[in-house]
Amino acid sequence: MLHRTYEGQQCSIARTLELVGERWTLLILRDAFLGVRRFDDFQRSLGIARNVLTERLARLVEEGILERRPYQERPERFEYRLTAKGRELWPVLFSLATWGDRHVAPDGPPRLFRHRGCGGRVTDRRTCARCGAELDVREVAVREGPGLRAA
Amino acid sequence: MLHRTYEGQQCSIARTLELVGERWTLLILRDAFLGVRRFDDFQRSLGIARNVLTERLARLVEEGILERRPYQERPERFEYRLTAKGRELWPVLFSLATWGDRHVAPDGPPRLFRHRGCGGRVTDRRTCARCGAELDVREVAVREGPGLRAA
Repeated sequence: MLHRTYEGQQCSIARTLELVGERWTLLILRDAFLGVRRFDDFQRSLGIARNVLTERLARLVEEGILERRPYQERPERFEYRLTAKGRELWPVLFSLATWGDRHVAPDGPPRLFRHRGCGGRVTDRRTCARCGAELDVREVAVREGPGLRAA
Repeated sequence: MLHRTYEGQQCSIARTLELVGERWTLLILRDAFLGVRRFDDFQRSLGIARNVLTERLARLVEEGILERRPYQERPERFEYRLTAKGRELWPVLFSLATWGDRHVAPDGPPRLFRHRGCGGRVTDRRTCARCGAELDVREVAVREGPGLRAA
């Protein structure tokens, strides 16, 4: 079990990891960025125990990183969407992916990131390599890369 | 205990978290970026059990993220320094800090990041807000911020 707090650390990295550093949490957020919204889809994508997923989603909702919205009435069902605060975590996930593509992706990147507007590659500073635009996550399209096809 | 692997995930984020996602590991790397090099200094800064620190450092060395160098002969002592591969994790730590400064730093940022060359603020895309340079971690100076003084 991962403890929640890093006691005595006056540090924005430590504080952030207290919210998103538990096992699975960053992969739940990755899935949310990739468009996953429903409990069963997160569960299928991640293959984790349902009680762990329930706990992680509840905490992300409590912290205002995801919001829980009804999408069906009978039976009542909810989906989970990134809030604005949650979307601001994209640079964390993108920088993890950038490093991983470079160092732990022997078959090439599993996913490719492209500027929706012009198709340019997304640089490691989240700008478009073609048109130079500073990109928000909503302007970025994700495509299957060679690492995913190889698998 | 945090498991090492995220089975079945063809994903550079998951692969990266397998290397640096264990509890304490990102804070060890943060300290390394802040100039900490010696076991006792990491231990003092983090307040973690020595066996956990030993295990984390060994793994980071094994993965080529830190390198272990002798700095004293009798008794033999070693220090830990970021490799080039390790320094490339700076965007991960910087984006965690950026988000934390914004959302979990009620007294203001504990640390301020400035371009060594001209003193400009470092933007969330790791460029200098004053001169526009694209910054490498070695061009960034860290100063105490209001959040640290308040503590």
